[in-house]
Amino acid sequence: MKFNVEVTVEFKKGILDPQSQAIAGAIVSLGYESVKEISMSKRFNLVIVGDSQGEVEKTVEELCKKLLANTVIENYQYAVENSEGK
Amino acid sequence: MKFNVEVTVEFKKGILDPQSQAIAGAIVSLGYESVKEISMSKRFNLVIVGDSQGEVEKTVEELCKKLLANTVIENYQYAVENSEGK
Repeated sequence: MKFNVEVTVEFKKGILDPQSQAIAGAIVSLGYESVKEISMSKRFNLVIVGDSQGEVEKTVEELCKKLLANTVIENYQYAVENSEGK
Repeated sequence: MKFNVEVTVEFKKGILDPQSQAIAGAIVSLGYESVKEISMSKRFNLVIVGDSQGEVEKTVEELCKKLLANTVIENYQYAVENSEGK
């Protein structure tokens, strides 16, 4: 079975996010004072085949820990959806 | 009024996405053959104040074109939601 997976990875609260800070600085220098907050995250869209949702979730969990997220400074969350059900 | 804005920026179809390719290569070398596709996108979450949804959408459109997306190689989409209505 084919599953669509969406993983979102973002910095943990309190962790300095240089990219967001650089963008926030650029926004101010462009004069957009109406922008009060900005944060950035990465999103991965995967297609994974597996015999069950549980099996795919196990793969996603491993991929997040080993590759997609730096769990020391980043949080991750994911959604797994059977694409053949649609 | 306060608005929550979510902007998603991803490579246009056909554009070489080195980061996704590097991750795809690492996934194969880690032995995860069940992963058939992977693509990556950036997501920005902003809080913007404005007098109307239209005004905030105009700001977001300008920010996307000037700063958040490289419109030559990237597509962007956004959602604007009045956070005071909740």
